[in-house]
Amino acid sequence: MGQSIPLDIEALGRRAASMIEALGAISSSPDHLTRLFLTPEHRRAADLVASWMRDAGLGVSEDALGTVRGHWWPAGEEAPRLLLGSHIDTVEDAGKYDGCMGVVLALLAVETIAKAGLKPAYGIDVLAFGDEEGSRFPTTLSASSAIAGVFQPSMLVAKDADGVSFEDAVRAYGKDPADIPSAAYDPNRVIAYVEAHIEQGPVLEVEDQPLGIVSAIAGASRLSVTVTGEAGHAGTVPMRLRHDALLGAAEMALAVEKIAKADRHGMVATVGRVHVDPGAVNVIPARVVFTIDLRSGSDSSRRDALTRFEREAHKIADHRGLGVVISAFHEVATVPCYRDLEVRLSNAVAELGHRAPVMPSGAGHDGQAVSKLCPVGMLFVRCKGGVSHNPAEYASPADMGLAAAALVRFIERFELPKTGSATGVST
Amino acid sequence: MGQSIPLDIEALGRRAASMIEALGAISSSPDHLTRLFLTPEHRRAADLVASWMRDAGLGVSEDALGTVRGHWWPAGEEAPRLLLGSHIDTVEDAGKYDGCMGVVLALLAVETIAKAGLKPAYGIDVLAFGDEEGSRFPTTLSASSAIAGVFQPSMLVAKDADGVSFEDAVRAYGKDPADIPSAAYDPNRVIAYVEAHIEQGPVLEVEDQPLGIVSAIAGASRLSVTVTGEAGHAGTVPMRLRHDALLGAAEMALAVEKIAKADRHGMVATVGRVHVDPGAVNVIPARVVFTIDLRSGSDSSRRDALTRFEREAHKIADHRGLGVVISAFHEVATVPCYRDLEVRLSNAVAELGHRAPVMPSGAGHDGQAVSKLCPVGMLFVRCKGGVSHNPAEYASPADMGLAAAALVRFIERFELPKTGSATGVST
Repeated sequence: MGQSIPLDIEALGRRAASMIEALGAISSSPDHLTRLFLTPEHRRAADLVASWMRDAGLGVSEDALGTVRGHWWPAGEEAPRLLLGSHIDTVEDAGKYDGCMGVVLALLAVETIAKAGLKPAYGIDVLAFGDEEGSRFPTTLSASSAIAGVFQPSMLVAKDADGVSFEDAVRAYGKDPADIPSAAYDPNRVIAYVEAHIEQGPVLEVEDQPLGIVSAIAGASRLSVTVTGEAGHAGTVPMRLRHDALLGAAEMALAVEKIAKADRHGMVATVGRVHVDPGAVNVIPARVVFTIDLRSGSDSSRRDALTRFEREAHKIADHRGLGVVISAFHEVATVPCYRDLEVRLSNAVAELGHRAPVMPSGAGHDGQAVSKLCPVGMLFVRCKGGVSHNPAEYASPADMGLAAAALVRFIERFELPKTGSATGVST
Repeated sequence: MGQSIPLDIEALGRRAASMIEALGAISSSPDHLTRLFLTPEHRRAADLVASWMRDAGLGVSEDALGTVRGHWWPAGEEAPRLLLGSHIDTVEDAGKYDGCMGVVLALLAVETIAKAGLKPAYGIDVLAFGDEEGSRFPTTLSASSAIAGVFQPSMLVAKDADGVSFEDAVRAYGKDPADIPSAAYDPNRVIAYVEAHIEQGPVLEVEDQPLGIVSAIAGASRLSVTVTGEAGHAGTVPMRLRHDALLGAAEMALAVEKIAKADRHGMVATVGRVHVDPGAVNVIPARVVFTIDLRSGSDSSRRDALTRFEREAHKIADHRGLGVVISAFHEVATVPCYRDLEVRLSNAVAELGHRAPVMPSGAGHDGQAVSKLCPVGMLFVRCKGGVSHNPAEYASPADMGLAAAALVRFIERFELPKTGSATGVST
């Protein structure tokens, strides 16, 4: 480890907070924060980010899906690049930190590095994606898919709530859909993608640590479970003669919880929606449909859990004389973060005097798409009360200052491999 | 035991079935059976019943709430009376047997007794009530309450779905609400009330017996249970940090089942309605409201069960860091049937070569109101598949013939007490 750039962590935190406030003021509504993909608000936020990039001495470009790219190329345009960033779109009635914080912290880190006169052998692109939340179109990660070269042309026909197609929205934003393929990076020229993001959960707060390292973006399965029994008069059918679909469903929900709790890969499972038919006070439930959302940092543990649940559900159904049908309606594979990036990020946090817990991310991120292009690493920032997708979302300036500082140390210590591979990181 | 009136059980069953068909054809709709209180259909059904009564040699009158009364007074108008009967109103899209069967069987039994030349020292009134289901007004048992002298004048202002008041409906039916009090029987002149009714449940079918004896009309409690936890992202809140309202509610529903199953008074408990808030696939449930319908043939066992449930629910809530609020929104006390009538009905069935299981009635009946006037006894008739309040409701002619025959034997063997009390039955 060589010399370290002197850091004013408090000042970094203050600047991050004020930039996040400025972005948070750009909304389609004066009452709450909503900033959807390819809207006038997206334009204004992108322009603000571009102006900050220019102020920091970065070159700026924008691709066909509106991703703002701030370039810092001390070793020339042809040198391999490290990608940093996050997204600037939001959910409806959003918090200010989700996404924006990662863009702001990347920018502050690169600015700090550049100002310190460091001249690494690689370049850095700071990226501000516009479609991570999937709040406008029934698609998601389109912008990060484009830079990874995996944009699906079928997305173009998707329509928003007003019937505007994705394709028309791209044109209305002043871009040409025909240019989307040229947004893709050459995989041979990209080293890695690193994103800082608010945790959106309570783990760091409970662990009393400002920063965490993401081990994987958890894969997810969503199931619809239909339990069928027999309706009957609540007063006249003795308990022993009942086939109560709700009681079967209750046992199944508790079985899911037990399976998730027994897992060692941070598995979470949620029964979020329950519909009871006929749903009358005095009628034995004939049919219950409920959903399961199951996520894990390990695809094999998730698959095992699904198999175990299926077995348990049938056992419960058989025991109660019920029918059960389980169908998956959503499947996303786990994206493991790269061990080498994990270790480097962890060391950077350690240099600042903190221990960063390693944890899977239960929420989705742009890194899922970018993983098709290059190794991905993620840094989590403590989230007050674990509250996310809510105006009450909050990360403290102190924690954000530490996160910016950790990115600076990460970049400072980063070295291109001596051995040819452009990525410089091992899995 | 003296001589027995010769009985053609098969013919009684056939007649019962054809009379029930005739009543079942009187509906507000050609597609299904719906016959509400104080409607033109009620009028037509009452007229048909009155014509049968006259054909059977009974005198006929009608009280201010439209209850048709067929009088057979072999010992004169002043002699004490046994009341038999049931109701001729229906739920919407009803079965044909619920209520009507009891009126028809009472009529066939009295006709058989009268034709046989029996001259008991008491009279019999066959009653056809018009408001047992409570399908038209948000009131129930008004007709039987009137004959018991416990009609609540507050019922008069109740309104049906079209905004017609109970009082106006009485007038439109050609009656005067001022006459309702005079519908009440003198308790000193009434011996007992006995009703035959389709079981509305599966017990007799499972026990392979055509007839059953009701030990009590079960009391009922209905509770609304609100469980409050904490919403959270389905992907980012670890299992150990969750306060999932739905999982707490699932445990509570299973606790209710366990409590009911452990009871020795035929307790039944049903969680029929469940509302999950926010009810999204990917959000941990913050709040669940569910209902419990709990019935038992013993009020003390029901009260014990409620206490036990409350304790269990709080234990579950405490364990999971949830809040729970339990509120009762409906309470009806148990009406025990009279042991003497139970025994007499049981003996009557035994004379026909059958063993009648003794069971509580989980459904409500006119006997609940009439119990304020005199001792009540009930005979249940086997119900195909336990299906009730449904066009598929069915009792076989053979079982109905046996039930009519059992009523004949019950009346035949009935004796006024030698010792003064008009009721002639002991509790």
